[in-house]
Amino acid sequence: MLAEEYHNIRTQTERLCQPLKTEDYVPQPVEFTSPPKWHLAHTTWFFEEMILKSYFKGYTNFHDKYGFLFNSYYQHVGERTFRAHRGHMTRPTVEEIFEYRRYVDEHMQTLLNQSPASEVIELTILGLNHEQQHQELLLTDLKYTLSLNPLFPVYKQDFCLVDDQENKEGWISVNEGIYEIGHDGNGFCFDNERERHKVFVQDYSISSNLVTNREYMAFMNDGGYKKFELWHDEGWSWVQSEGIYHPLYWHFTDDQWFHFTLAGLQPINPDAALSHVSFYEASAFANWKALRLPTEFEWEIASDRFDWGRRWEWTNSAYLPYPGFAIAPGAVGEYNGKFMINQMVLRGGSRATANNHTRKTYRNFFHPHYQWQYSGVRLAK
Amino acid sequence: MLAEEYHNIRTQTERLCQPLKTEDYVPQPVEFTSPPKWHLAHTTWFFEEMILKSYFKGYTNFHDKYGFLFNSYYQHVGERTFRAHRGHMTRPTVEEIFEYRRYVDEHMQTLLNQSPASEVIELTILGLNHEQQHQELLLTDLKYTLSLNPLFPVYKQDFCLVDDQENKEGWISVNEGIYEIGHDGNGFCFDNERERHKVFVQDYSISSNLVTNREYMAFMNDGGYKKFELWHDEGWSWVQSEGIYHPLYWHFTDDQWFHFTLAGLQPINPDAALSHVSFYEASAFANWKALRLPTEFEWEIASDRFDWGRRWEWTNSAYLPYPGFAIAPGAVGEYNGKFMINQMVLRGGSRATANNHTRKTYRNFFHPHYQWQYSGVRLAK
Amino acid sequence: MLAEEYHNIRTQTERLCQPLKTEDYVPQPVEFTSPPKWHLAHTTWFFEEMILKSYFKGYTNFHDKYGFLFNSYYQHVGERTFRAHRGHMTRPTVEEIFEYRRYVDEHMQTLLNQSPASEVIELTILGLNHEQQHQELLLTDLKYTLSLNPLFPVYKQDFCLVDDQENKEGWISVNEGIYEIGHDGNGFCFDNERERHKVFVQDYSISSNLVTNREYMAFMNDGGYKKFELWHDEGWSWVQSEGIYHPLYWHFTDDQWFHFTLAGLQPINPDAALSHVSFYEASAFANWKALRLPTEFEWEIASDRFDWGRRWEWTNSAYLPYPGFAIAPGAVGEYNGKFMINQMVLRGGSRATANNHTRKTYRNFFHPHYQWQYSGVRLAK
Amino acid sequence: MLAEEYHNIRTQTERLCQPLKTEDYVPQPVEFTSPPKWHLAHTTWFFEEMILKSYFKGYTNFHDKYGFLFNSYYQHVGERTFRAHRGHMTRPTVEEIFEYRRYVDEHMQTLLNQSPASEVIELTILGLNHEQQHQELLLTDLKYTLSLNPLFPVYKQDFCLVDDQENKEGWISVNEGIYEIGHDGNGFCFDNERERHKVFVQDYSISSNLVTNREYMAFMNDGGYKKFELWHDEGWSWVQSEGIYHPLYWHFTDDQWFHFTLAGLQPINPDAALSHVSFYEASAFANWKALRLPTEFEWEIASDRFDWGRRWEWTNSAYLPYPGFAIAPGAVGEYNGKFMINQMVLRGGSRATANNHTRKTYRNFFHPHYQWQYSGVRLAK
Repeated sequence: MLAEEYHNIRTQTERLCQPLKTEDYVPQPVEFTSPPKWHLAHTTWFFEEMILKSYFKGYTNFHDKYGFLFNSYYQHVGERTFRAHRGHMTRPTVEEIFEYRRYVDEHMQTLLNQSPASEVIELTILGLNHEQQHQELLLTDLKYTLSLNPLFPVYKQDFCLVDDQENKEGWISVNEGIYEIGHDGNGFCFDNERERHKVFVQDYSISSNLVTNREYMAFMNDGGYKKFELWHDEGWSWVQSEGIYHPLYWHFTDDQWFHFTLAGLQPINPDAALSHVSFYEASAFANWKALRLPTEFEWEIASDRFDWGRRWEWTNSAYLPYPGFAIAPGAVGEYNGKFMINQMVLRGGSRATANNHTRKTYRNFFHPHYQWQYSGVRLAK
Repeated sequence: MLAEEYHNIRTQTERLCQPLKTEDYVPQPVEFTSPPKWHLAHTTWFFEEMILKSYFKGYTNFHDKYGFLFNSYYQHVGERTFRAHRGHMTRPTVEEIFEYRRYVDEHMQTLLNQSPASEVIELTILGLNHEQQHQELLLTDLKYTLSLNPLFPVYKQDFCLVDDQENKEGWISVNEGIYEIGHDGNGFCFDNERERHKVFVQDYSISSNLVTNREYMAFMNDGGYKKFELWHDEGWSWVQSEGIYHPLYWHFTDDQWFHFTLAGLQPINPDAALSHVSFYEASAFANWKALRLPTEFEWEIASDRFDWGRRWEWTNSAYLPYPGFAIAPGAVGEYNGKFMINQMVLRGGSRATANNHTRKTYRNFFHPHYQWQYSGVRLAK
Repeated sequence: MLAEEYHNIRTQTERLCQPLKTEDYVPQPVEFTSPPKWHLAHTTWFFEEMILKSYFKGYTNFHDKYGFLFNSYYQHVGERTFRAHRGHMTRPTVEEIFEYRRYVDEHMQTLLNQSPASEVIELTILGLNHEQQHQELLLTDLKYTLSLNPLFPVYKQDFCLVDDQENKEGWISVNEGIYEIGHDGNGFCFDNERERHKVFVQDYSISSNLVTNREYMAFMNDGGYKKFELWHDEGWSWVQSEGIYHPLYWHFTDDQWFHFTLAGLQPINPDAALSHVSFYEASAFANWKALRLPTEFEWEIASDRFDWGRRWEWTNSAYLPYPGFAIAPGAVGEYNGKFMINQMVLRGGSRATANNHTRKTYRNFFHPHYQWQYSGVRLAK
Repeated sequence: MLAEEYHNIRTQTERLCQPLKTEDYVPQPVEFTSPPKWHLAHTTWFFEEMILKSYFKGYTNFHDKYGFLFNSYYQHVGERTFRAHRGHMTRPTVEEIFEYRRYVDEHMQTLLNQSPASEVIELTILGLNHEQQHQELLLTDLKYTLSLNPLFPVYKQDFCLVDDQENKEGWISVNEGIYEIGHDGNGFCFDNERERHKVFVQDYSISSNLVTNREYMAFMNDGGYKKFELWHDEGWSWVQSEGIYHPLYWHFTDDQWFHFTLAGLQPINPDAALSHVSFYEASAFANWKALRLPTEFEWEIASDRFDWGRRWEWTNSAYLPYPGFAIAPGAVGEYNGKFMINQMVLRGGSRATANNHTRKTYRNFFHPHYQWQYSGVRLAK
């Protein structure tokens, strides 16, 4: 059954690539994105490097330089190529990378069908979750790359990101008290979701709805991007130095706001949930409403009482370790702890998130100025 | 009595400047420091702008451009000069700034001696705490400027920053439970220390001692600056791009470590508390010890059981608002909230901190790569 | 016959691309290079924009956004895409660009076969010379891109850049006097080669040979890159800030110098002409020899008496207008004059230069720190 | 008599400093300027380092670190402080630097009054010319520093830079032919003025007047800063990235153009000669007039026939060595040759130039984007 899941998830990655032209696999326009080619190879490298090299007897690397080329931030596993230079890689070709995938997949299938050791099972599950993270990044990064093209290329005409939300206005109230936070141990979780622990929260209310484009346009029309008092000092600098005055991918054309989507340029739906705002924008908007963002604990505690999963939701929690968090030894241990500085937690998931990949204890995290995620806003008070 | 306190604190700022040459008042070698001249004028501007202009009938500004020149980050009060350009200011001269101080002080004394309104009292107290903050910055920034001079100038031969700590090795244990955090309302506090609120903490222990130079040198000798696995990813980038391999102000000369102090270049005392490390260094050191930094809550809860005040102590808490934190309207409200992103909390105080200025609920905060503060490390587990 | 020449030159561009994989057409690793895809499209755009739109009755643009996408520096013809972003362009695909070429070529053939106006003939000749310039750039830029790939891809196994030169040691002497410089009007030339005019030169000698790798390795072994007194002040800064210590594309592996070529990594041939040095390196080498680089006039006057065309040769002449130089009105006039600052003249040609494209009055020019051209050194005294 | 000249020139430097406040001596707002303090010390260091240390028996350095602190670009003489950091130097104080000057001057007087060796005489003359260059830079740099101050400080109320020129409209014609260029050997000259050599020039005319503010305002009013076709490609980038739309020091206030001078803010005199334009502006203006800048040879040949010395005049000649130019061995030889790249020649002089310091063969040179010199325009055709 793990072999089957392996097959399904790996196949899904390639299914996501079906609409692509060869040229789409190559560019990396900014350092924080990666080209599809790299995502395809890097996720494969994980299985080769972390599993096959150690647990498949007599395994021969597909290519002796791929370890160097497709490592990401794992400092334990030799030098990595510069993160900023992934788009300069002409070779290996896309074709060769698909061969690489087939080669690794065949060996993985052999291994998984031979009553694998529990370590192999654990690492495979980790590798598949890692692959799912990169499925999301592949789409998110691709959107960024295509968005820069004046031809506004369509990834998939029917790539329908349903934006609408049922309108159940209203505030969900939660009483002060001690609550349990973090993963309960049933099923897979990342290291940053543990240890499960108690927190005390004060009385609070959290919105049952995400902020809509309509609400955000009201903020824009009220001069929200020009009122420094709504912004963090660094957010204000960002707005001014980058000339930000709308969410990412928005275009004002013919007296109307459009946004670029993976289905091409589309008019904004005012009732759809807002997306592609930075933490700074989320926070300024909340200030303008005289409300605030929830903490990640408030979000998690109330999460059974509202719909989520359409949009990553910025919280006002910094990404920090839970009590008892410990870094696993070796390369696998490099997973999450090293990023626990200068980033804010997002909870939820998005339409680009792989099925069954997220959960209410899942902690996503990004720098506060990033807009390229499907990131939205839920308010609290 | 407030008039007397006003006099004492204002005089203390000028006393700190007595050893300076005119030339020392001018340079600003990096953006995050300010010249003494600017500190002297900016603190004065606060009283003129926030109090005298509104509450002193018929008050005439000392100079109509000083409002522009000596504003800091207060966007409410008109344009500010670029933070990075404070060292380019030839005029006003130091002499003129001392005249400015005398002029404002006379008016403030008049005002304070006429049974001032409660708003004036509150703003004066805020202004005096602000002045004390700048007393510390004046010394801290001056140390940075002088340290760049190959002549290693001495600020004050007898400026004795006693480094030694009583050696009471040992761990202080605290039981899990709900504790009250934040200022209790007796006396002055900054807005970021409130509201007082409950937090739940797990069982923990915190060291009764600060980390010493000796311990840190062991970390250095063990290659701590070369082991990426001890560092945050951004910390590791910082170490590599800046070529960091020791605390700020340390010099290795004649087979020995020295550090630059306000009393000139001095040999390192191994038993003194470590100082001038960044959050990244503090955290990497803790990892090397297989321990961790305390949270700011853990620090505050246990603070009655250890000596503190010699060194600002990095915590592993991000600088975020307490529950119920609200921004005051207008310029005064710009005080603290706008900095609540990408900074880490330090607790305690330092020898450069003004007398009676700090308290156990005091929240200092800096970006994680800054070393120029008197910043040290207390471990927890 | 012009139609035939058109066909031959346009076909030659595509022949140069035959060994490429689709992925090779895309990346632009540095701002001063362009991807093959862009060269293919930009040269085509020239014919569409400058000729077909004006002289082909009823001509319809192949695509209405290509004018924007494939403009280079021609400010006259609407906005251009940012030079630095050519590698981010996923679409149009390579296939679509070849269609674009076919479309434009068919129309150009129709036009050229209908006794075209003299303006069309002139512009076509200009366009073909422009195409040949880009043929050279295509190879030169491709080499740069491939060189960054740790797999050292081979463009063409038999891409033989014969490096050897006949060894006819010796100095060619020229007497002082007045000489004619610049193009004599027979055949095509660029605007920067005119007006033909008189110059006075002093007695000088110029080497009949190019500097060899052997000679340059002697400079390297003598510490040439460490002796500031040999370098221009800005050259020295460049050497230090970029960490330069050998010509571009050189690699020291297994105790031997190799260089990356379009036929892959090859051992250095000591007797071959040196290549891929900057003006700064050329000049420092000349100083080390207690000799100098020739001026472009000295080069041109003596050029009938030595072999040239293997390597672009740095001169010590700044790229400036000849007496009587005038800028043609309109977009075509943007050709060369606007670059006449901060660049040095190179004379000659290289193996990558298209056949019959260069001539003794041809003035190539680059910034003094560029190494990516096939640029070598001829000495004078 | 050399002793007397030494005294006069050295005293003149200090006379220029009389109006300064101590604070004016310190800041260095941009890398290409230096603080007065540094000019005072560096010129002194030249005499100490180049003369006294070698030729004054038993000479003891005034301070053993000054050699390090006040070296400029002389790589031969040990490490130099970073050029960009001269404004961070609190110590030595201005007072100490004046002591340094007295100390060196006394020793120099002693040396010069003891029938000094011819080498001492030559080096002293070089040092005095060097001092005069720095007198000009001191004023030019000071103007830049004061100009940034919102208080618009006045250096000297009666610092009268007479701007008017006699109006003798007209063109001076020169016939083609061979002319002698360069210094004839009578009196002092810098190495870059030699060897005197022949050049051939074509027929040309050169204006007897400098371009006036009135003419330049016509260019501005005609949108000169917005017409890319008038500009070098790099000039156009400079205009756009720096937001340039007028000469340096110009301010448009109350519907009128003012410029900042060393006598404070003054209204523009339309009939005065234009000043503080970059080479890019000079060249764009000439293009707008359908005229051109003269070459340095054209300027020198005709210079006896027009008034010059009020303003440095941009030529269209790159700063390159004359035939036979040779670099003197050792530190003195670092003087000029190393800057012969990426700079354009200016001829003439300015009101800030020391008396008797310039001559018709004098070659000044700056990067084409610099405006902070008293630089103007004379046209040719």
